[in-house]
Amino acid sequence: MDPVTERMVADVLAGEFRAIARLITLVENGAPAAIPALQELFPHTGRCVSVGITGAPGAGKSTLVDQLAGHYRALGEKVGIIAVDPTSPFTGGAILGDRIRMQSRSLDSGTFIRSMATRGNLGGLARATADVLLVLDAAGFDIVLIETVGVGQDEVEIARTAQVTLVLLVPGMGDDVQTMKAGIMEIGDVFVINKADHAGVERVEAELESLLAISSRQDGWKPPVVRTVATEGKGIDACARAIQSWRESQKQSAFQLEKRIQIQKERLLELVHAKIVRSLLRDQRTFGRLDELARRVVERGIDPFSAAEVLLAAWEAQRSH
Amino acid sequence: MDPVTERMVADVLAGEFRAIARLITLVENGAPAAIPALQELFPHTGRCVSVGITGAPGAGKSTLVDQLAGHYRALGEKVGIIAVDPTSPFTGGAILGDRIRMQSRSLDSGTFIRSMATRGNLGGLARATADVLLVLDAAGFDIVLIETVGVGQDEVEIARTAQVTLVLLVPGMGDDVQTMKAGIMEIGDVFVINKADHAGVERVEAELESLLAISSRQDGWKPPVVRTVATEGKGIDACARAIQSWRESQKQSAFQLEKRIQIQKERLLELVHAKIVRSLLRDQRTFGRLDELARRVVERGIDPFSAAEVLLAAWEAQRSH
Repeated sequence: MDPVTERMVADVLAGEFRAIARLITLVENGAPAAIPALQELFPHTGRCVSVGITGAPGAGKSTLVDQLAGHYRALGEKVGIIAVDPTSPFTGGAILGDRIRMQSRSLDSGTFIRSMATRGNLGGLARATADVLLVLDAAGFDIVLIETVGVGQDEVEIARTAQVTLVLLVPGMGDDVQTMKAGIMEIGDVFVINKADHAGVERVEAELESLLAISSRQDGWKPPVVRTVATEGKGIDACARAIQSWRESQKQSAFQLEKRIQIQKERLLELVHAKIVRSLLRDQRTFGRLDELARRVVERGIDPFSAAEVLLAAWEAQRSH
Repeated sequence: MDPVTERMVADVLAGEFRAIARLITLVENGAPAAIPALQELFPHTGRCVSVGITGAPGAGKSTLVDQLAGHYRALGEKVGIIAVDPTSPFTGGAILGDRIRMQSRSLDSGTFIRSMATRGNLGGLARATADVLLVLDAAGFDIVLIETVGVGQDEVEIARTAQVTLVLLVPGMGDDVQTMKAGIMEIGDVFVINKADHAGVERVEAELESLLAISSRQDGWKPPVVRTVATEGKGIDACARAIQSWRESQKQSAFQLEKRIQIQKERLLELVHAKIVRSLLRDQRTFGRLDELARRVVERGIDPFSAAEVLLAAWEAQRSH
């Protein structure tokens, strides 16, 4: 490892915000220099609790994150916040960053806030989030809150990188709870009904409870339903207690272990993919081959599936030299 | 190729809806049987015009798609519609399908409608859309309209699989046009202001024009701005003319050729990835290795980056036998 990276790693381990921010930027940009740093940091991880927070737009995710951060800060814990916005092409990822930077929390030296927007490559954001989590874990953060903006498959993938996932609902969603269906019911470890001072809270709670009653989780966990009014700080303690009780229940869970292994398998396959793509693009010959084959496909001289076969063979031939 | 696949390919080339639907299901499920079929169909493609339609929720995308389909049907063209919903975990992909199936258009034998929801693997939806486009192209469809639901990075990726991309706006978006920024301005080949009978149409048009004035495209194309009232069928002809003029302008465009080659390169890398993952998972030894390594990472015995290196080496050793 070069001295610059070595210094950065030491500074990250010491919890220095500037070094943390610099390494996260390298991770976001997919810079090769990030890998040895992450490898060096890995043995220092495993202590931090990560909480994913997802839910419909306008459900009050940011406010809840802010309140939870305040709760943990009051207990003297170091808090990391990652705000991920995969919808940036339309809504502008920078807006989110600005909004968050304006919040009082960021002035507190015990809280590190970082917003991440979509990178060009699909799937890359969940991987980048996992790496940022690794950095904050190694830097000594006790709890990391991962907030996603929007409600798509990307957000589900990102929420999965956290140990615990909170799903936010609000009164007035009405029949929409029904349409959230399997996908979201599966990922929610704790359900939070925010804006619980609004009309319709009983209805959304009843619908949620009836859905939870019929969806049996393999790990036997019954996701608690917590009411909050995040803007007034109400229900935040209950929310933190629900997170804590989930953690205690999972410590000896064989199912939870299997889930983590499964997520790790997907991650390893992604890393292998990234390695292969990098090695394909680095070698002049295979890179030239890629360009030539893409051209031939566009000119309809070869079908894409056969071209992929040729490319793979060329890459293997180059590797075996 | 087995006789069943051979028969399916022949039926797709004959334009039979049931065979088309069956092959699309294979594509969606990532079934290995789809590959030889797609390879066989590839030489029969290249004639179809694909139009991606994206924009903010509630902008009237479905209605515009319905009206454009009617326009092309009236000219005697065969129309394919692919409605893609990457937001399904929250909104329920089936809802979209049901909504579309209820539309009158689906009763017309010259129109094939298919809705696609998110698959588990990220990036898979854009790839699947490209393959469905290939199927419909080979099946003799003159025009395929690809409608995306939602406004994230996924939608941008999907819209890019089409030759022409329409971006829908509506009056009253106000300053939101500013926040759409580079990402979306780049992908829009034609801008449609729908609900042009609503107040504020001049304002959104002026903002759009001023943004277009400062964003110079590398291909020199000035994206036209078209006003429509899709619910009343107004402006549909102008919209179709804008699509046509874009196509004519691009026929001899070197830039457009380079763009297609670039997209094809990304696609080839994705196909290589899919091949490698499949081969990794198929072989008992490397599959066992993956499981063992994921377990060790979870138990913190090895970092994920070193584990990926070991896995790649194991896979290469197995391939070279």
